[in-house]
Amino acid sequence: MHQYRTHFCNALRADDAGRTVRLSGWIHSKRDHGGLLFIDLRDNYGVTQIVVPSEGALLEQAERLRVESVITVTGEVVVREEGQRNPSLPTGDVEVRASGIDVQSRAEVLPFQVAGQENYPEDLRLKYRYIDLRREKMHRNIMLRSQVITSLRRRMVEQGFTEFQTPILTASSPEGARDFLVPARLHPGKFYALPQAPQQFKQLAMVAGFDRYFQIAPCFRDEASRADRSPGEFYQLDFEMSFVTQEDIFSVLEPVLAGVFNEFTPEGWKITDGAFPRIPYADAMRDYGSDKPDLRNPLIIRDVTEQFADSGFGLFARIAASGGRVRAIPAPGAGSRPRAFFDKLNNWARDQGAGGLGYIIFDEEGGKGPIAKNLEADRVEKIREICGLKAGDAVFFAAGKGDEVVKFSGVVRTKVATDLDLIEKNAFRFCWVVDFPMYERNEETGEIDFSHNPFSMPQGGLEALNTQDPLTIKAYQYDIVCNGVELSSGAVRNHLPDVMLRAFEIAGYGPDVVEARFGGMLNAFRYGAPPHGGAAPGVDRIVMLLADEPNIREVILFPLNQSGEDLMMEAPAPVEPARLKELSLKLDLPKPKPSAGGSKAQEKQG
Amino acid sequence: MHQYRTHFCNALRADDAGRTVRLSGWIHSKRDHGGLLFIDLRDNYGVTQIVVPSEGALLEQAERLRVESVITVTGEVVVREEGQRNPSLPTGDVEVRASGIDVQSRAEVLPFQVAGQENYPEDLRLKYRYIDLRREKMHRNIMLRSQVITSLRRRMVEQGFTEFQTPILTASSPEGARDFLVPARLHPGKFYALPQAPQQFKQLAMVAGFDRYFQIAPCFRDEASRADRSPGEFYQLDFEMSFVTQEDIFSVLEPVLAGVFNEFTPEGWKITDGAFPRIPYADAMRDYGSDKPDLRNPLIIRDVTEQFADSGFGLFARIAASGGRVRAIPAPGAGSRPRAFFDKLNNWARDQGAGGLGYIIFDEEGGKGPIAKNLEADRVEKIREICGLKAGDAVFFAAGKGDEVVKFSGVVRTKVATDLDLIEKNAFRFCWVVDFPMYERNEETGEIDFSHNPFSMPQGGLEALNTQDPLTIKAYQYDIVCNGVELSSGAVRNHLPDVMLRAFEIAGYGPDVVEARFGGMLNAFRYGAPPHGGAAPGVDRIVMLLADEPNIREVILFPLNQSGEDLMMEAPAPVEPARLKELSLKLDLPKPKPSAGGSKAQEKQG
Repeated sequence: MHQYRTHFCNALRADDAGRTVRLSGWIHSKRDHGGLLFIDLRDNYGVTQIVVPSEGALLEQAERLRVESVITVTGEVVVREEGQRNPSLPTGDVEVRASGIDVQSRAEVLPFQVAGQENYPEDLRLKYRYIDLRREKMHRNIMLRSQVITSLRRRMVEQGFTEFQTPILTASSPEGARDFLVPARLHPGKFYALPQAPQQFKQLAMVAGFDRYFQIAPCFRDEASRADRSPGEFYQLDFEMSFVTQEDIFSVLEPVLAGVFNEFTPEGWKITDGAFPRIPYADAMRDYGSDKPDLRNPLIIRDVTEQFADSGFGLFARIAASGGRVRAIPAPGAGSRPRAFFDKLNNWARDQGAGGLGYIIFDEEGGKGPIAKNLEADRVEKIREICGLKAGDAVFFAAGKGDEVVKFSGVVRTKVATDLDLIEKNAFRFCWVVDFPMYERNEETGEIDFSHNPFSMPQGGLEALNTQDPLTIKAYQYDIVCNGVELSSGAVRNHLPDVMLRAFEIAGYGPDVVEARFGGMLNAFRYGAPPHGGAAPGVDRIVMLLADEPNIREVILFPLNQSGEDLMMEAPAPVEPARLKELSLKLDLPKPKPSAGGSKAQEKQG
Repeated sequence: MHQYRTHFCNALRADDAGRTVRLSGWIHSKRDHGGLLFIDLRDNYGVTQIVVPSEGALLEQAERLRVESVITVTGEVVVREEGQRNPSLPTGDVEVRASGIDVQSRAEVLPFQVAGQENYPEDLRLKYRYIDLRREKMHRNIMLRSQVITSLRRRMVEQGFTEFQTPILTASSPEGARDFLVPARLHPGKFYALPQAPQQFKQLAMVAGFDRYFQIAPCFRDEASRADRSPGEFYQLDFEMSFVTQEDIFSVLEPVLAGVFNEFTPEGWKITDGAFPRIPYADAMRDYGSDKPDLRNPLIIRDVTEQFADSGFGLFARIAASGGRVRAIPAPGAGSRPRAFFDKLNNWARDQGAGGLGYIIFDEEGGKGPIAKNLEADRVEKIREICGLKAGDAVFFAAGKGDEVVKFSGVVRTKVATDLDLIEKNAFRFCWVVDFPMYERNEETGEIDFSHNPFSMPQGGLEALNTQDPLTIKAYQYDIVCNGVELSSGAVRNHLPDVMLRAFEIAGYGPDVVEARFGGMLNAFRYGAPPHGGAAPGVDRIVMLLADEPNIREVILFPLNQSGEDLMMEAPAPVEPARLKELSLKLDLPKPKPSAGGSKAQEKQG
């Protein structure tokens, strides 16, 4: 018989009755019952009930053990009595009558309980992560994460991709967020950087001819923590392909994502299948007030500026007259809601910094409410028509200038649909947002800036750059969005040095600047570069969606806390002066302010 | 028709004749022949011959293109004439008659050639790695690496393992080599470290109950470069299992390694199958003079000290009398070699720092040579018997004291077998070296030290620690060796705080030191820890063996050079003073010596 176990703790069934078995695991719980001691013995795979006979040394030994101690139990499998069976447990028909118990590890008093659903402070959980991970939900989340990654890998390989590891000790990235730096001991005064993404390496892999690259890639950004982004490191499904159009890239990623989401959602969930909707950026902003539209939300925003122009409702008429827009957010079924519903939304809008949230309620006789009172009846009727509403429905209005009203109408759309319980349930709805503008006008300087990634291919190529108003040029740049969460940006890359130099020139960068800052890539493109493109969906975000966890730390094995500290391993930590000397570095600590200790460090976080 | 390609460049066959196809790729080579231009078009998958018709704009356009330019060719598939076919190419029966060529990217003059087998300086190749990787051997090596890793993953999953990502920004490791440090911007004066291995995290994953962990894990050591170790980062197949004995760990890894080596070696290669030989450390040193025995080498070293004690061969007699050993390295078939063979080996031995390399040649009449001349005939005969030799064979001798002679006899064993061409060919021979001593006597201080990993479980547990001479205690510590290359150490870990504290006490570390330095792990073991163990075979080394590459940089996509520099991305690099300020750091550069520039930096590498 094996020293530790003949079976996992999820394995025994009624037809194992009579066998002598050995199990090892943690004492999940103990209870005395009728003079017997019952132990739920837990391992990675499941739980089996152990019965310790009512007398003798064994009982005494078992009673002294704390929960979470690790034991090896030898005994006979017995079918439980009718009425004692537990149908919710795969092993619930049997128990093991212990004839011997070997203690592998005694547990001291725990900082918190493993069994049960109680909430504990996150920092305590992170300090004792190895205990926290034994809890059912955490164990399930981490196993899910692993299975999702394995599934992503398998699906990418099936699509003809090859996984390559790109360097982690590399050069500082010339764009984007802040890099982590690593002092190079052998090169005094010089530093490696950890990659924010393997962007340049994957493009160079294309230039090297590898055709279809992917990697479950660790990425690093020295940024403040957010709920959906880990401080420090995160993982993305980084991929790149050669000789492809944007549509080729879409048709590769769609079955991978739909497949993974189908694999890990319960029966009956709805996942976008086939080609995901392609929504031009301009349409997304118009219809959803967001470049991350949540398609589970059925509401479509409408422009009703015209209906308010020169109308009797002076506030919106003035906004229309001064070049602003009035956007209507339909609220089907809201007509039956009490006044308080509308008042609450109005207050919410003020909290968001808006003047309020005007509305019209429709009944059989027409529009009701403060706006309808002042607006001509035919205009009210026209708004009802435009929004596709009927008696019993309502409509909310967002009015103002430029981007601000567009974005606010998107926020209202989400709020109204949530409060009216209109968001589709048990569904993952994907879309591509496409045709992002290549350039935008910097509102502060008035200059032309890149609006997203300067390395994307402009639609229309060199000719567009040379002949079109830059603000009308679109890029082969896209986002993949699921349930309103951006999983990734992506692009067909600009692989032509001439086009790249011209694109930068429009944004005000001369060839010398481009050569100095991006010379590595530019040079590579001079020795035969294929057209290529890709994307990099966030692995952590995919797992968060599938696990329905809003906090990224719930889907990472050993995460840093929100301040970027590993409370279990005590990182970061001071180092010996000799280590710094080796690295040709000295500390240059901020002087503590005499009156406000620590505030300096706070300031530096900005 | 797709904008870039209907087929990969390895796809077309004779039965595609008559189809209009489109291919994209690099111009591998061009040649004029009979007024036609022939282009070998290369992509990730293969090569197809393109024929450009003898007249018109197309030929002119094609002639102007340099090799390694990227083009898209549209044309008709044509079966080549008899005599023009190339049976060594999968597409060798056909060619494509170009009717259109789109230039995707023009190549400038290349720093070195992609086609052909010429050698170029490594630094040039690394600077233009994206060109170097297009060369056939590099492309094959990198694809092999990826396939090996995919295969390792699949095999580990089949064995019930789950892959988890452990942190890369973590705490400085209390043991082992030098860590890379990462300044923590938000915690002035503190540093993260990059993991030398996920050792502590994988053990904590076991404490957390995950049972069977693995990871293709990036590891980081700030060490000088070696041929078989990358400066900076390297990858290992890191794994750990709970509730296992040493034999369980062996029986998991054996089929994984044998499977991978079988999968990626040509038909007819011999791979150790079934259980790998288990060789106790003491036996390995005795029989092979190495703890990394190459079992392709059939020679077994014998101890013949007794045969020289009080013998007529004074030199060895004196060594035997003073407590030294005489070790015999058989050399079957060497008897027919000319005198020069023995002289050359003798000179080689002197180069190695030995006094020389004595030998006896056996013929039908007995032993010959300077030693045999002075050694009694019955002793010569006894040596022949012990070594299992016959007429026509020879034996070499290594004589001296202690470890030195043991190791030197191992070196001689390798040299003799190599020179006699006795090393088995086309074979990967694995073994486990087991039963490493837990402690050794530090030769300088005379104190008892850990001989390998202080966290391994001592054989016999606490009782052995309390009752045995420490130098006789063995550990559940083992190495996996293939063809004389150590792929990994591994161990059953010590998961018992009491045993760990006692083990450290024997090596001279009090409980306060252990708590201070290893408190994290020790604490975790106090809340219920399973018995566990594992290993971490080096991925780079496995690929090096399979690719038959002695230089690790030949099996890494974008490696650092031997000085730890990325010549392509120009890392490491200086950073802006503002970045250092943010990190609360100042440079503290070594002052250049006035007379010997740069020597200081050299010194610091020591």
